[in-house]
Amino acid sequence: MAKKKKTKLGKIKVAALGGLDEIGKNLYVIEYESDIIVVDCGLGFPDEEMPGVDLVIPDISYLEKNVDRLRGIFITHGHEDHIGALPYVLRTLRVPVYATRLTIGIIESKLAEHKLDYKPSLNCVAAGDIIEAGDLTVEFIRVNHSIADACALAIRTPLGYIVHSGDFKFDLSPIDGEVMDVKRLAEIGAEGVLLLMCDSTNAERPGYTPSERMVGTSFDHIFASHTMNRIIVATFSSNVHRVQQIIDHSVRYGRKVAITGRSMLTVVGAATRLGYMDFPDGAIIDINEIKNYPDNRLTIITTGSQGEPMSALYRMAFGDHSNVSVSKNDIVVISANAIPGNEKLVGKIVNELYRCGAEVYNDNTSPIHVSGHACQEDLKFMHALTKPKYFMPIHGERRHLMEHRKLAMFMGERPENIFVSELGRVLEIDESGARFSGTIPSGRLLVDGTGVGDVGSVVLRDRILLSQDGLIVISAAIDTLARDIVTPPDIFTRGFIYVKESEELMEEMRGVVRDALERSVLDYKSDISEIKNDVRDALAKFVLRRVKRRPIILPIILEV
Amino acid sequence: MAKKKKTKLGKIKVAALGGLDEIGKNLYVIEYESDIIVVDCGLGFPDEEMPGVDLVIPDISYLEKNVDRLRGIFITHGHEDHIGALPYVLRTLRVPVYATRLTIGIIESKLAEHKLDYKPSLNCVAAGDIIEAGDLTVEFIRVNHSIADACALAIRTPLGYIVHSGDFKFDLSPIDGEVMDVKRLAEIGAEGVLLLMCDSTNAERPGYTPSERMVGTSFDHIFASHTMNRIIVATFSSNVHRVQQIIDHSVRYGRKVAITGRSMLTVVGAATRLGYMDFPDGAIIDINEIKNYPDNRLTIITTGSQGEPMSALYRMAFGDHSNVSVSKNDIVVISANAIPGNEKLVGKIVNELYRCGAEVYNDNTSPIHVSGHACQEDLKFMHALTKPKYFMPIHGERRHLMEHRKLAMFMGERPENIFVSELGRVLEIDESGARFSGTIPSGRLLVDGTGVGDVGSVVLRDRILLSQDGLIVISAAIDTLARDIVTPPDIFTRGFIYVKESEELMEEMRGVVRDALERSVLDYKSDISEIKNDVRDALAKFVLRRVKRRPIILPIILEV
Repeated sequence: MAKKKKTKLGKIKVAALGGLDEIGKNLYVIEYESDIIVVDCGLGFPDEEMPGVDLVIPDISYLEKNVDRLRGIFITHGHEDHIGALPYVLRTLRVPVYATRLTIGIIESKLAEHKLDYKPSLNCVAAGDIIEAGDLTVEFIRVNHSIADACALAIRTPLGYIVHSGDFKFDLSPIDGEVMDVKRLAEIGAEGVLLLMCDSTNAERPGYTPSERMVGTSFDHIFASHTMNRIIVATFSSNVHRVQQIIDHSVRYGRKVAITGRSMLTVVGAATRLGYMDFPDGAIIDINEIKNYPDNRLTIITTGSQGEPMSALYRMAFGDHSNVSVSKNDIVVISANAIPGNEKLVGKIVNELYRCGAEVYNDNTSPIHVSGHACQEDLKFMHALTKPKYFMPIHGERRHLMEHRKLAMFMGERPENIFVSELGRVLEIDESGARFSGTIPSGRLLVDGTGVGDVGSVVLRDRILLSQDGLIVISAAIDTLARDIVTPPDIFTRGFIYVKESEELMEEMRGVVRDALERSVLDYKSDISEIKNDVRDALAKFVLRRVKRRPIILPIILEV
Repeated sequence: MAKKKKTKLGKIKVAALGGLDEIGKNLYVIEYESDIIVVDCGLGFPDEEMPGVDLVIPDISYLEKNVDRLRGIFITHGHEDHIGALPYVLRTLRVPVYATRLTIGIIESKLAEHKLDYKPSLNCVAAGDIIEAGDLTVEFIRVNHSIADACALAIRTPLGYIVHSGDFKFDLSPIDGEVMDVKRLAEIGAEGVLLLMCDSTNAERPGYTPSERMVGTSFDHIFASHTMNRIIVATFSSNVHRVQQIIDHSVRYGRKVAITGRSMLTVVGAATRLGYMDFPDGAIIDINEIKNYPDNRLTIITTGSQGEPMSALYRMAFGDHSNVSVSKNDIVVISANAIPGNEKLVGKIVNELYRCGAEVYNDNTSPIHVSGHACQEDLKFMHALTKPKYFMPIHGERRHLMEHRKLAMFMGERPENIFVSELGRVLEIDESGARFSGTIPSGRLLVDGTGVGDVGSVVLRDRILLSQDGLIVISAAIDTLARDIVTPPDIFTRGFIYVKESEELMEEMRGVVRDALERSVLDYKSDISEIKNDVRDALAKFVLRRVKRRPIILPIILEV
C-alpha cells in the first residue's frame, strides 16, 4: 500500500460570522495557517421577534481570541450591512481596515459618531491595489453596485485564489463610467479560482439586473410630464449615483434641488467632498430656501424610502416636517424597492401621500428603481468568468443560498464541490480537497441603546409576552408573623384592558386576589414566594377563563 | 328665476364601514329612503401596531340604530374578510343573511364555533336569483374568484342599478366550468349602471390575471418530475378549486392524499358534503395512515401557506407535527402568494424547509399560484361592460383606490364622477347628481380573546411601549405619619435587561431609587402620588442617561 504523501501546503479555513441564513451583518473569516483576514464587518437590522432592539452585530469572540493572527479587515463597500459593526468591532480589534476612498469616507463619519478611545488605522485603497496580509494577498477589483466605489476581492493563497464577490451587479452603462472589471476577473478565472464566495441576494430572480441608467429614462418621463408640479424624490441615501441622476434631471429641467433627511445630507456632503458627485454651483439650495421658489422650480430629495417612521418623507406625509408639507401639487417618487419586511411601512406612507392629494410613483407601479444585486443570468456570468473549483454561496437566507446552489449546478459545478454553509461552520480546503470541519464560536449580539449583548432571548421573550396581553401588578403588604394582611391587595394593569370601561372585571379580579391572598396567608409556612405563586396562579386562571388572555402577572407582596 | 323642480324620486346613500383604506373587514351600506341593505360583513387582521389583538371588526353602531330599516345582509363570497364579522354582528342585528350555497355552508361552520343565543336566518341563493329588500332588489351574478360560488351583486334602485363587483376575476377556464356571467353584466350595463363599486385589490398590477387552470400546468410539471419523492402542498384552505386540482393530480399520478390542518379539514369536509369537490373513493386517506404508504405514493395537503406559526406546515418544518416531519425526500410546494405583511413569515418557513433538506417550490421561483383578483386589464373590461355613470373604487388601501381611479379615467370616466371615499363617508345620489354628504359613525373594534372593544389605543400604546424597552417595578412600603421607610425599596424588571449579567447596573438603580425615596419621604406633605412620581422620574432619568432606554416604570409604594 502506498504511504499517503505528506502535503507541504497548509490549510485554508473559511467561515462566516454573519451573512449566512440572513441578509445583513456580513462578516467572513478567511485563514491560511497563521494568517487571518476578515472580509466586511456589517450590522443587521432587528426583525419583529426583537422588539426594542436597535441593531444586531456579529459575535466576534473568535477574532478577539485570535487577534494576534488577524492581519486586517477588508471592506467591499460602504453599506451598513458591510461596515455597520465596525464601531463596535474596532473597540477590541485594533487592526488595520482597508477600503476604497468613498467607503473610508463613510466609515470615518460613522466612527465620528461613536468615539473610539484610539485612532484606528483606516487605509484607503483603489481598485486594482493589492494588499499583503501575511501569506495572503488581497486584490481589490472594481464591481458595480447600488453604491459607488464597490469592490470584489481576489484573495491569493498558496493554494489558489479565493474570489469574494462582495455585493455586485454587471452594469454596462454605469453613471460614473466605471464598468465592473470583467477583464481582471476573467484573468483570475483563467489562472484558476479555488473558491468562489458569491452574493446570493437575487438568486431567486430570473433574468438580468437592469443598468442604473435605466432609472434615468423613467425620471425623464416624470420630469417631462409634470412641469407645473413640485417633485419630491425619496431614495437610499447611499445610492450616490441615483442622487446624482436626480440632480442632473433637476438641473436639466430648470429646478433647484433641496436635500432633507440626516443621512441624505451626510452622504451627499461626503460624496461631494470626495469628488463622487458633480453638479453646477447653485444647483443645490438649503431646504429653508424652498419658500423662495415656485413649485415647478423645485426638486426635493429626501430619506424615508423604506417608510421609516420619523424619516423626512414620513414627516412630510404626516404633516410634521418643518419645511415641507405634501399637497396636491406634489409629485412624490419613491425611487427604491421595499426591503423585505418593510412592505407595510412603505404602503402606509404611500397611502398617506395619496391622502395628502399628491401623485405617487413607486416601485409597484413604475420602473423607478433597479436592484444593485446580480440576478440569475448575471450570477451565471460570474460563475462562467471565474470557473471556480469550489463554491460557497454567501449573503442570503437559506432559500437564496439554495437557489444559488441550483444555479451553480446548472453551470456544471458538482454538488460535492458546493458548500452551503451556516454561521460558524468551517470550510477547510487543502491540497487533498475541501470539506466542512468543525465550527468556531458565532452568534448575534443585540444592541439596545448603549447596551451591547445585555438583551437576549429571555428579555425578548418577556417583551413579546408583555406586548401580547400586557401586565397586571398585584400589590399587598403582609405581616407573616401575625399571618395578617397589613395593606389589602390592589391591582394595576398596563396594556391589559381599558380600565375605565372594565370596572366590573377589575372588581372581580380584586375579589379573586383578595380571596387567594387570605387563604394563602393563613396557610403560610415559611416561604413568601409560595404566597406570591398562589395569588398569581389564582388570578391567571380567572383571567384566562374570563377573557381568554394571558397577561404577565407580577405579585409584589411586601413583608412588614 | 325658474323655481327648482321638486324631484319625485328619493335619495340613495352609499357608505362603507370597512373595506376602504384597508384590505379586509368589508362592509358596505346601501340605502334608499327607508330601506337599508348591507353587502358583506368581514373581519380584518391586526397589523403590527395591534399586538395581541386577534381580529378587527367594523363598528356597526349605525346599523344597530337603524336596524328597523335593515332588510338583510348580502354576502358575495365565503372569505373571512367578507363573512368573518358575522358571528359578532349577528349578535345584535337579527336580520336575514343571503348567500350562495358554499358561502352559507362556511358561515354555518363559523357560527357553530360562536354559539348565538338564537337561530339566525341564513338564506341560500343561487347565481341569478333576485331578492327583494324593500324598494331595492338584489340580484346575484356569478363571478370567478379564488373561492367557489362567488358573486357580484346588481342592486336595482328606483334611480338605477348599483353594481357591486365583490371580489372577482375573469376566468375563461375555471375548474368548475362556471365562467363569470359576462352576459348578464353586459345586459345590465346596456340598461344603465348608476354606480359601479369595484374591487381594487390588484389595481396596481398590469395585465390580465391568469386562469386558475394555469396552476395545474405547473403542478403537472412538479408531479411528473418528482416521481420518487413525497409531495407536500400548502395552500389557502378556502381555495376549493386549488385543492381539487392537487387531488386530481395526485390521483392521476397514483398518489394517495392526506389532509392536515384544522381549516383545511373543515373546508374540504364542507365542500365535499355540498358537492363542490369530487374525487374517487379512497383517494383521500387519514393523516395517521401515511406511514403505510411509500413517499412516492403520497401527497399531503396542508395549511400554513402564510407561514403562520403553529400551522401544520410550520409544525412540519420545525419538527413539531405528530405525523409529518420534513426531510430530504420531500418536495414542498407553497401554492400561494404571501399576503402583504406575511413575507418574512413565509420566508422563515421556506428557509427552514430547505434546512430540513427539502426541495421547495414557492411563488417567488415558480408559477404555482394565481391571484383571485382582477388585474388592470380585467378591471378595464369590467368598466367597459358596466359603463357606469358614477364609480366608487372599493376593497383597497388608498393607493389601490387611487390607481383604480386613474384606470377609470383612462376608460373615459370623468374625475367628478369618481368618488374615492373613506370609512363612514356618505355618497349621496339623487336625480340631480352625486356628491359626498356627511358621515355615519364608523370605526374598528378590536377583538382580543373574548373581549370585543375593550382594547383600544391606550392599551395598544402601552403594549408597544412595554415591548420596546420592557418594565421596571419599584416596590417599597412607607409609614407616611412617621415619614419612615418600612420596607426598603426593591426593583423587579421584565423585558428590560438580562438581570443576572447586569448586577452592577441593578445595584446602581437600587441606589438611585433609595436616595430618591429617602428624599421624597422626608419632603412628604399629603400626597403619596408625589412620592411615586419623584421615584419614577429619578429612575427614568438615570436609566435614560445610563443605557439610553425608556422602560415603563411602575412604582408600587404602599402606605402602612
